[in-house]
Parts: sequence; C-alpha cells; structure tokens
Amino acid sequence: MIDKSSTTPLYLQLVDIILEQIKSGTYHEGDKIPSERELSETFSISRATVRQALSELEKQNDIYKIHGKGNFVSNSKIDQELNGFYSFSDEMIKIGKVPGNKILNLILKEAGNVIATKLNIKPTDKIFVLNRVRLADGEALMYETTYLPHWRFKELHEKEIELNGLYNLIKTKYNVSISYAEETFSPCILNENDSLFLNAISGDCGMILERCTFEKNNIIEYTKSIVKGNSFKYKVRLNNL
Amino acid sequence: MIDKSSTTPLYLQLVDIILEQIKSGTYHEGDKIPSERELSETFSISRATVRQALSELEKQNDIYKIHGKGNFVSNSKIDQELNGFYSFSDEMIKIGKVPGNKILNLILKEAGNVIATKLNIKPTDKIFVLNRVRLADGEALMYETTYLPHWRFKELHEKEIELNGLYNLIKTKYNVSISYAEETFSPCILNENDSLFLNAISGDCGMILERCTFEKNNIIEYTKSIVKGNSFKYKVRLNNL
Repeated sequence: MIDKSSTTPLYLQLVDIILEQIKSGTYHEGDKIPSERELSETFSISRATVRQALSELEKQNDIYKIHGKGNFVSNSKIDQELNGFYSFSDEMIKIGKVPGNKILNLILKEAGNVIATKLNIKPTDKIFVLNRVRLADGEALMYETTYLPHWRFKELHEKEIELNGLYNLIKTKYNVSISYAEETFSPCILNENDSLFLNAISGDCGMILERCTFEKNNIIEYTKSIVKGNSFKYKVRLNNL
Repeated sequence: MIDKSSTTPLYLQLVDIILEQIKSGTYHEGDKIPSERELSETFSISRATVRQALSELEKQNDIYKIHGKGNFVSNSKIDQELNGFYSFSDEMIKIGKVPGNKILNLILKEAGNVIATKLNIKPTDKIFVLNRVRLADGEALMYETTYLPHWRFKELHEKEIELNGLYNLIKTKYNVSISYAEETFSPCILNENDSLFLNAISGDCGMILERCTFEKNNIIEYTKSIVKGNSFKYKVRLNNL
C-alpha cells in the first residue's frame, strides 16, 4: 500500500507496487495493467502521480504503451551468462530465437591510432572494418563494429560472413582457434545513429560492449557493440577466491 | 580528416577524430580541447556540426564543459574486474581512493513478494533494508539498497555498518563465510531520485547492478545498486571452454 507519511516519493512507491505485481505474477508479459484512472482511484493518489509512475516504468522498459489501448507488461530481458566465450548467434538459437546478421558494410583501411592500440598493431597497418546489425526473430538488438587485423585475415567477403557467421568463417577459412576474450560493459545514451539501426528512441539507454578476442596471446578481433537498452541482462558468477 | 562524401554523419566523424586524439595522447585527462571556432576552422565544417559533436562527447562523458572556460577531457572510468568476489571499499583502496559509506537508513520490515523470491524466504518473513550512498574520494558513485534476511542477521545497527563496512561486520559478528555471488548488469536512465543521491543529472545513463551473495547454497544478501554512468567499466574474461 501507499504510505503518504514515507519519505519515498509517492510515484516511486507506486512503481514498486506495480513491479511487485509483475514479479509476483499478478500480471504477465503482454498483460494490460490497470488504467491511469483505476490506479488513481485504487491508491487514492492524483492522476499526475500515477502518470509519473507509469512514465518511470516505461522508461525502465517494464511496461510499454499502445496508443488508445493502455499500458502492457514488457518482454523480459534476455539473460546472457558471462561464464565462457559465447557467440550472439549460438546464444539466440539456444533460447529458441532465429539469429539474423545484417551486414551494412565491410571495408579495408588503415588502422589509425585508437584501433592500432586495441589490436596491438601499427597505425599504418591495414584492418577490415565490419559494420553489422544483429537481430533475433527479426528484431534489431545490437549495432556492431568489428575490427580485424589484415595480417591474420587476408581476404574477407560480405557474402561469406553473412552465410557462415564471422566466428564460423574464421575458424574454417583461417583455422583460428580462440583462446579467450575480454569483454567490458558500460552504459550509454543511444544517439541518433544508434537508434536508427536499433529501431529505438534517441535518448534511450543502451549498453556499450567491447570485446577483444585472443588467439594464444595475439588479439585477432576488437568489436564495439551498442546494445539496445531493454534487450539484455548480463550475468556473471563471482567466486570467493 | 573529415570525409564529406562518407555516409557517416560529419559530427560522428569529428567525435571519432577527437576520441582518437584523446586515446593517442594528444590531449590528456583534464586538458582543454580546441574551441568550437577552432574546430570549425580546422575541419572546415559548420559550428552547428561541431556543437553536435561536442554535445555527443559530453553525453558519453568523454569531455566536460566548464562554463566560460571551454571543454576538457574527462577522467577515465574505473576498471572493475569481474573475475572474483569483490567489495566496493577494498576496490577503491586498491586504486588509491578513500572509500566512503553514507548510510541513509536501515529498517526492519516484511519482505514482500519481490524480495522474498530473491532471498528465497516467505513474503511475511522479516528483512533488513539498508540504503547507502557509496563514495570514492568524496564523490558519490553508487546508490545502493541492500536486503538482508533477518533469520541470518538478528541485529544490525547503522553505526556498526558505518564503522566496519557491511562485509567485514557480517564476517566478524555473524561468522559469515561467503561462497560466491551472482551479479547482473543492465543499463538504465537515472531518475530524479537516483540523480539526487548521485549528484548527477536526471536523464543521464546509469548501470543497474544486482548482486545475490551466497553462503553455501543460502542467499544471504540481495543488493540493487544504481551506478553513476560515467564512473565504472566492468570487465570480464571469457575463456573458450
């Protein structure tokens, strides 16, 4: 119940109540939640406060609005376990989704300072730059830029990447044996460019995911992905060493 | 250089150029970068485009503005390795910062459905709820809510948590031996409440970090932290199993 004497703002109390009802199973994914008017009456709070709570839930992607219909409980996020090397396509197949791989372009160019440092090569060395949108069941989830050193991958074509997937291709064509990857996570605000490719709203939150993949001690891939904010939750197990 | 025939928007090209100059060491942390006018002249692009690039860099926290002075290169993020159990205070000490721990409140109440599920207890069971702001060298970096089951921690006081830190306290007072923790990461937009405690701007990005800590197979802690967007980068090693 709403506690009007509490120091927690009323709208945040309502947010917690609705989240509780979603988590406890009162409302399921895709269910319509009560209207602004109903919530205002049930909890004896102003419609402005209810609106603030609903807008907060929408911002957190817990609910979504259908114009003229009301508010509905969102799909839950995809849980991505971080306890070993994984590929986007394999993970999507595991959870019963069809992975997609839309290649925007693939070019060969000089590395430049930033990428040269990442790939441990010289700024004048050549690299392949691959821009892709990764999809699951047709929905765009990541906008990815992959940098590959030319010394290891002499020839790459859009078609073969599209057909085989990048990791499968480099394993079969270049006999790559991946040792491990380092992945970093930091949040971001989606810019216009990201939102365009992710079919999201500019100003929404996203996750920047950077991956360096190692073959023995050589870095053979650096990828920067922009992940749509509401699509993944990354999970890691921290053992007490 | 800026390529006006490229499909990449001009402002994003400028963003990349400035980032490259920061990464390559042309500008260091705290350095002033060239003014709007200088950048516009150097790259023969409009001041509106320069402004868009600078605002993008500011949004990503790569630079910060000082009114009437110009734009400066930001502090870099704190790298948090996720390869074992860690405590905020210990990590801050490791990188030479003074950890702070501002307790907002500590209450004993019924768990309710959501927290009962997390802690694997009954909704009517009692829990301690601890609200804290975690600081490093006086700067607020996380707003944390910790839920502790009363069956394991019969008595807790603000003062002793403030004095010893939570993990040290439960180890010494309750003989807790932590086995492992599970931590999840998802991005968010900071709401008014978060921004207030984090001294941030509402609408900025943040990271939601949830931790469940296990003693053998019992969950003895569930914590939800809101992390200031520009403060941490989380890093995990993914072995090819």
